[in-house]
Amino acid sequence: MSVPLTPAELPEDWWPEVRPDAARRLMKAAVESFAARGYHATTTRDIATAAGMSPAALYVHFPAKSAVLFAISRSGHERTLALVESTVAEHDDPVAAMRALVERFVAWHAKRHVIARVVQHELDALTGDDRTVVLELRRATEALVRDLITRGVEAGVFTVPDVRTAARAVLSLGIDVARWYSPTSKPAPEILGKQYAELVLSMLGHHG
Amino acid sequence: MSVPLTPAELPEDWWPEVRPDAARRLMKAAVESFAARGYHATTTRDIATAAGMSPAALYVHFPAKSAVLFAISRSGHERTLALVESTVAEHDDPVAAMRALVERFVAWHAKRHVIARVVQHELDALTGDDRTVVLELRRATEALVRDLITRGVEAGVFTVPDVRTAARAVLSLGIDVARWYSPTSKPAPEILGKQYAELVLSMLGHHG
Repeated sequence: MSVPLTPAELPEDWWPEVRPDAARRLMKAAVESFAARGYHATTTRDIATAAGMSPAALYVHFPAKSAVLFAISRSGHERTLALVESTVAEHDDPVAAMRALVERFVAWHAKRHVIARVVQHELDALTGDDRTVVLELRRATEALVRDLITRGVEAGVFTVPDVRTAARAVLSLGIDVARWYSPTSKPAPEILGKQYAELVLSMLGHHG
Repeated sequence: MSVPLTPAELPEDWWPEVRPDAARRLMKAAVESFAARGYHATTTRDIATAAGMSPAALYVHFPAKSAVLFAISRSGHERTLALVESTVAEHDDPVAAMRALVERFVAWHAKRHVIARVVQHELDALTGDDRTVVLELRRATEALVRDLITRGVEAGVFTVPDVRTAARAVLSLGIDVARWYSPTSKPAPEILGKQYAELVLSMLGHHG
């Protein structure tokens, strides 16, 4: 019954912060089940079976199916926030910061499109405190992007009709990559990131 | 058992081409069920019940759950293609055409965000000929947007790093509105459309 995944099936960089490995295997199995059939049509048994474990073993790590979704969603949102925070901190120049931010944000959503798609599609399945935590991470990320655009406008390097809408459009372009990107998509994630960075800087009225 | 929806619950402009009204009621009930729980977790009985009908009555109009999804998805994609086609036909000037296209495309995705979200999220649930038909409609729509950008580049009013990526970004911005827009979102659909049109023209290197 118990068929553990081989290391090749569980990339090292999927939730490296999560221990033990059994919890990571369950999260990976859940992502794949949610991606294929949706959160509501997936049972804890489906997830456990796909991870080569018993339902009882799942409950050792997660009290419910919703806790697996929350772990996936929180990790994805924390990683996005950290990416934006560190990129903004690295660059004083708003143009350089925005370029690096879009390159990384877009490449990440292309490379991790299966996780990112589940995180975005199943947002409404989160409830209560889980939902509050994730929405707060989203608000913090959006606020950083708005602040960066505002700094660029004040420095005279960006011109936008509305800062809030512009920030939404920047994040939206990146997030939506996860919807349409597939393993056969072109160009490669890093190239796409560079092309999108050019498009976003132009969108923000920067003519380099 | 049979509780027909009142006219107020079924907007006249939801699938006006579909007859009889019972089929439209079933499509609306299906959209709402798919939006709430996903395609795979929704049964034909759920759809029929939500429309105030029996499962047998559903089968008079649709041979299977997949046929309801296909009707919703095909209609949404045909409407999008028609919107792009008619807008391009109305304007010789690539800038005017792109402005009108984004205004209408974005406003439609904001106003009909529940339908549009289901259409996008459940694309993978379409199979066989249904999938072929919908993917062909998407290809035709993307080709029109690429051609419009190419015309603008040739006329010297657009400058983009890559036409294919730029066309994807234009459509992506509009489609993703359906993900994040809600009845409490600001600004109103038409205002958002105008703001996005400005952002897109700037993104395409047009400095009006």
